[in-house]
Amino acid sequence: MFDYQDRMTRLRDRMASEGVEVALFSIGPDLPYLAGYEASPSERLTVLVVPSRSEPVLLVPRLEAPRVTQDLFETRAWEELEDPVAIAVSLVSSPSKVAVGDQMWAAFLTRFLRHWPDAKLVPASSLTSQMRVLKEPAEIELLRRAAQGVDRVMRRVSDELRFAGRTEVEVARDLAEMTVVEGHDEAAFTIVASGPNGASPHHHPSKRLIEPGDVVVCDFGGRLGGYFSDSTRTFVVGEATAHQAEVHAAVLEANRAGRKAVASGVACQEVDRASRTVIVEAGFGDCFVHRTGHGIGLEVHEEPYMVEGNETRLSPGMAFSVEPGVYLPDRFGVRIEDIVVCTEDGVMSLNEADRALVEVG
Amino acid sequence: MFDYQDRMTRLRDRMASEGVEVALFSIGPDLPYLAGYEASPSERLTVLVVPSRSEPVLLVPRLEAPRVTQDLFETRAWEELEDPVAIAVSLVSSPSKVAVGDQMWAAFLTRFLRHWPDAKLVPASSLTSQMRVLKEPAEIELLRRAAQGVDRVMRRVSDELRFAGRTEVEVARDLAEMTVVEGHDEAAFTIVASGPNGASPHHHPSKRLIEPGDVVVCDFGGRLGGYFSDSTRTFVVGEATAHQAEVHAAVLEANRAGRKAVASGVACQEVDRASRTVIVEAGFGDCFVHRTGHGIGLEVHEEPYMVEGNETRLSPGMAFSVEPGVYLPDRFGVRIEDIVVCTEDGVMSLNEADRALVEVG
Repeated sequence: MFDYQDRMTRLRDRMASEGVEVALFSIGPDLPYLAGYEASPSERLTVLVVPSRSEPVLLVPRLEAPRVTQDLFETRAWEELEDPVAIAVSLVSSPSKVAVGDQMWAAFLTRFLRHWPDAKLVPASSLTSQMRVLKEPAEIELLRRAAQGVDRVMRRVSDELRFAGRTEVEVARDLAEMTVVEGHDEAAFTIVASGPNGASPHHHPSKRLIEPGDVVVCDFGGRLGGYFSDSTRTFVVGEATAHQAEVHAAVLEANRAGRKAVASGVACQEVDRASRTVIVEAGFGDCFVHRTGHGIGLEVHEEPYMVEGNETRLSPGMAFSVEPGVYLPDRFGVRIEDIVVCTEDGVMSLNEADRALVEVG
Repeated sequence: MFDYQDRMTRLRDRMASEGVEVALFSIGPDLPYLAGYEASPSERLTVLVVPSRSEPVLLVPRLEAPRVTQDLFETRAWEELEDPVAIAVSLVSSPSKVAVGDQMWAAFLTRFLRHWPDAKLVPASSLTSQMRVLKEPAEIELLRRAAQGVDRVMRRVSDELRFAGRTEVEVARDLAEMTVVEGHDEAAFTIVASGPNGASPHHHPSKRLIEPGDVVVCDFGGRLGGYFSDSTRTFVVGEATAHQAEVHAAVLEANRAGRKAVASGVACQEVDRASRTVIVEAGFGDCFVHRTGHGIGLEVHEEPYMVEGNETRLSPGMAFSVEPGVYLPDRFGVRIEDIVVCTEDGVMSLNEADRALVEVG
């Protein structure tokens, strides 16, 4: 499905132009991007060593070797009593500049640094993110299928899910289960933030009983073929008050304005400004405490970020969220989030579930 | 439930004796151990900065500040356009020795190193793991409750779960669901490795249809109050062959021998040797490709490791797995895993579900 050899060639070109003598990819998105294989977070190091002057080698703990199916590079299984850092170091002669996968554990990095005390370190994203940020058609297709799955869950939430008298945890479990049923390989994260908890953007579902009159923020996503979905809709249990409807209308207008601002050549910060201006003008500027969006792909959050100060220009193939929100401490929160893709002639929203303040039971 | 102030005092004592001028705790087990708060893996840095000469400060992204309930230390929320690394750095004057949480993302560590290019780095586990390795009674109690939950799942697997004609993924979903139903806050990991897949110790559940005659390794666990369960039993669909029974009997004897070797003052490697000797003598030595066990607590895998070369002496309060296995390429695997605790007068197994080769449908 993906042309890994082409990706490796482009990585090596970037390494050459940046003077990087070795790149180390462990847990995180770069290894699956380059090799179609994902490392498990573990005290046993998995690392793809890419020296600038020799062939890449994938080092894996022996007990995980049976699940390596990639045959792009040599796979070397290290034994339980061997030191994988020493093996990796032996593949390169004392490099002056090293790129390390952004999510590599510090414990491993400190061990590499003991071997290479004078190496200059750069995060591997400085090489890979400009590649990963431009999604290939097959990547967009996976993001689309994931988004459509989460849209189906949102419709089922409107139609059939019961909120009143149940806890956030119970509703979250239903959402996670539906996320799998509707086509994801796994549920990735689930925020159910009811009433005052909605004012906490990254609230963890609690045992709070959801009550009539509550506004409930549902923000969840799953993973499909390695790619994530991530969408938010805000519901109200029973009939919305005028104030709830007013806040929701402002956020919905900000969501529309953000999506409308997307076009090839536009700076990322302009998307943030478009959404933020609407919320500021509605009088809730202080209550929109986060950026408007984040890229999405093999990570839930990745470049490009829709944030003030980011002058990166949008290009066709960039996929990211537009998710303005308003958070009223001790009262409630509202967020509306879609994943969109910048296209040649504008923008395409991968999420299309109803954005209205749907009244639920 | 836990005396966080005492833990912080002991950490500071260790920092002083090791000459560590600042310790940085981000994602991973040390932050919840020290502060009862867990950071989410994210491109937005959460870090507890513990300078040797001033009070600790917990830096969190503003949008996550509402979920911080700890009041042990000052919590400072950084705004979306601020640089949390710069804020952390401003709290300490150019330290010569820095401890960094083992799982901190390399991307953050490289940013700290730009500010502190001459700092000597040590993994924070060099300070914390000697503390965390000795479980307090309340920690043992959580491990026990988690273990009992997973035992109940194992019994339900024997009694009611259908294997034949279903995929590993389907069985894994049932196990994960039962793990929650039986009292965990969440399922953490689920290995279902049937037939030849059982020869891959860390197999990811696949769409392989389980067939009569298959040996199936079920290794799973969940999280309860932050603490993990982790147990493995091996089942057979229908009647076991003599060969399957022979391999299972060797592993069971190795599991017993490993548990029996546990006592205060015994070196960790002796537990590995006790299990390994049985398997070597049964003629399967080459097929036992991993260490015998790992510590467990706020991480699924942590110190102490039951592995050749580890001369650490067991002490009362240490909790760890005993999990010998035999892996026969292209045929099947067997593993039997219990979590045990070293006590004053021997060993206590937290898992007690039937260890026999149970025949299932």
